[in-house]
Amino acid sequence: MPAPLNEWTASEIATAVNAGKVTCEAVTRACLDRIAAREPDVHAWAYCDADRAIAAAKEMDKRGPKGPIAGVPFGVKDIIDSEDMPTEWGTPIHRGRKPERDAACVALSRKAGGLLLGKAVTTEFANLQPGATRNPHDLIRTPGGSSSGSAAAVADFMVPIAIGTQTTGSTTRPASFCGIIGYRPTYGDMRLHGVMEASGSVDTLGILARSVEDVALYRDVLVGIPATPIATVERPLRIGFCRTHNWDAIEPSTQKSLEEAAQTLAGAGAEVRDVGMPAEFSGLNMAHRTITGFEFARTFTWEIEHHWNEISDTLRGGRLADGLSCSLETYHEARAVGERCRAAADVALADYDILLTASAFGEAPVGWNAFVGVPVFQMWTMLHVPSITLPVFKGPNGMPVGAQLVAKRNGDRGLFAAAHWVHQQLTK
Amino acid sequence: MPAPLNEWTASEIATAVNAGKVTCEAVTRACLDRIAAREPDVHAWAYCDADRAIAAAKEMDKRGPKGPIAGVPFGVKDIIDSEDMPTEWGTPIHRGRKPERDAACVALSRKAGGLLLGKAVTTEFANLQPGATRNPHDLIRTPGGSSSGSAAAVADFMVPIAIGTQTTGSTTRPASFCGIIGYRPTYGDMRLHGVMEASGSVDTLGILARSVEDVALYRDVLVGIPATPIATVERPLRIGFCRTHNWDAIEPSTQKSLEEAAQTLAGAGAEVRDVGMPAEFSGLNMAHRTITGFEFARTFTWEIEHHWNEISDTLRGGRLADGLSCSLETYHEARAVGERCRAAADVALADYDILLTASAFGEAPVGWNAFVGVPVFQMWTMLHVPSITLPVFKGPNGMPVGAQLVAKRNGDRGLFAAAHWVHQQLTK
Repeated sequence: MPAPLNEWTASEIATAVNAGKVTCEAVTRACLDRIAAREPDVHAWAYCDADRAIAAAKEMDKRGPKGPIAGVPFGVKDIIDSEDMPTEWGTPIHRGRKPERDAACVALSRKAGGLLLGKAVTTEFANLQPGATRNPHDLIRTPGGSSSGSAAAVADFMVPIAIGTQTTGSTTRPASFCGIIGYRPTYGDMRLHGVMEASGSVDTLGILARSVEDVALYRDVLVGIPATPIATVERPLRIGFCRTHNWDAIEPSTQKSLEEAAQTLAGAGAEVRDVGMPAEFSGLNMAHRTITGFEFARTFTWEIEHHWNEISDTLRGGRLADGLSCSLETYHEARAVGERCRAAADVALADYDILLTASAFGEAPVGWNAFVGVPVFQMWTMLHVPSITLPVFKGPNGMPVGAQLVAKRNGDRGLFAAAHWVHQQLTK
Repeated sequence: MPAPLNEWTASEIATAVNAGKVTCEAVTRACLDRIAAREPDVHAWAYCDADRAIAAAKEMDKRGPKGPIAGVPFGVKDIIDSEDMPTEWGTPIHRGRKPERDAACVALSRKAGGLLLGKAVTTEFANLQPGATRNPHDLIRTPGGSSSGSAAAVADFMVPIAIGTQTTGSTTRPASFCGIIGYRPTYGDMRLHGVMEASGSVDTLGILARSVEDVALYRDVLVGIPATPIATVERPLRIGFCRTHNWDAIEPSTQKSLEEAAQTLAGAGAEVRDVGMPAEFSGLNMAHRTITGFEFARTFTWEIEHHWNEISDTLRGGRLADGLSCSLETYHEARAVGERCRAAADVALADYDILLTASAFGEAPVGWNAFVGVPVFQMWTMLHVPSITLPVFKGPNGMPVGAQLVAKRNGDRGLFAAAHWVHQQLTK
């Protein structure tokens, strides 16, 4: 018996829909049924109108669905505009906010045949204050953030793909906590028109999915180029196993999983070598904090001036306090750190196809409404490199834990090929 | 007899308002009177509601105006959101579009005491298709674009300062054509939240003003830092006179003006040396065209999909056609050109305080509704460096022509000090 339609990948759905074997309506109803059953527990959605979604699916069936993601229901983080739904940024300040047109990423998804099902819960302003979403694997645990609802909805088979964003670890971390694949593209590849700006120097979109093929397919859609299949790895992968200078912050069980994974991959034929990080990379996390604080505190001037009391203590005392007290000189120094480290990364990564490293410190913590995870791996975000998180480990409580693969800037296609191979080896 | 209030600089207005010597209402009325008299000819404004502006000024007088630009009326390009006025992006597609909050730059301006007077005309999507604005010095000529209304309004004494943007030469060129000061900041210094994205890799805000002091003052407001006065030049300025590889595209009279300016500055004590450009800079204009085309065509996917027939032929056959046919590989190569040239620029500019170069090819062309100027100086935009255009020349028809000063990335404060000195020397 085939899996229910809501468990299909985007690639499977699009193939069947394009071949006329499955209707958009059937796929949409399957996803909506799952949402109806699970949403009271998971709280993945800030907005989802079932009647509207079914009407849109019927309309698409009538027109004749086509495109690389024809008939594929997708969700977007609630900081991404669409012409037909509210977008509220996870804050009461923007409750009822109704954009008048689609963000570029929504328009590109629809152009490719996708069906927008709704807006997925975000933390407040895509920062640290949790939204209502629970981890679908254990409802008392955090799904991670800030792309909380996007990750939970994909993990819980409500949609096959969703768009998140990443300013710190907002795609990587929830993907790891929810046991799905999270992809952060090379900085600058995807347009952010119609997406709430958080910290423009590091913001990117992120893709949440349940297969590497879906990530590669949806990435081409969101970049706005023809879909290219994932290449086959033709020679032994050169993998750098990178513990990073934050190794001590990682749970022992995750440390062990990563070391075993390195051995498994070597055993499968990869050339795996330990790789250290250039000394200056130790300044990246602080530089990231400086940059995002400075930018955040200015981006949200209107909210600070008019709605200070409606902003959480977490945000006011965290990024906004940091940013409002930061000088331009300190901000420029932090930007210079980023620039130097990006040049150093080009050199450090030159001998490797990918780095293997941690996605998060370990399992999703208990306390879904307390915090969304410790950000200690944002150095990759600062480096503007692409990364992908694969759900290949289990923690001591049986919760999923991800492994992160990192590639050179603009090396996204090579990253997909490597991730595909690594995923196969580690889930055999 | 003192000049009428609408001819005062922002610095003069703020000083008088903060000292209680002039009311916000009086300043606003003076600007509105000027607009009433001249707008039927100049067409600088997409939206300006006089009653609303006077009410806001009265309200500010009642509250007690304060801040670095207290009581200063300002305009913003019609791609910049505000909570109280439409923002229509220069296209019928977005007619009546009403944002629900202020862009970061508007909120920062208001926090500093500024009074938003209205939305200044932009070309279509801040691209090449002209809006209704005429050059205030000669109504049959273009004001330049894309920040057409912002430049014309400042040049015609309707407001002392206005915000534009720059993706190609959209602040530099209209400043030169309209005979005012135009400033393009170091890429990344000012937040673009609430500003229509055109090409995120190069977009910045721009400031239009009538004095260097106003530019420096307003820059600190828009970066969100305490105002710092312009430093005095303490030693001979090291000026590189840079003809660029586009020298032949510059009108002979502008060439002559630039060469005489270089001599004047040398005579006034500067160390002026001819400086060539690294050979690879010759690829910058093409790389800029590739990058902006690729990004523009994806940013505006919603408009392309739903409103193709309402987009001008200029845009459809230009940037959109370029971008839609461009591959990701070509786009990445163009980005790499930019990155290499930025590294080369850091070296090339190390021995100079500023470069002296052209702002535009010459006088504003006749044909206000035909085109807004030839973009041939966008290499500076690609380099992410700050630049300032000074109204120091006259063309053969008596029209203003600007000289452009360029500094290193993050060298904006040094640029202001140099520009202040250069402006004094060239307008003695």
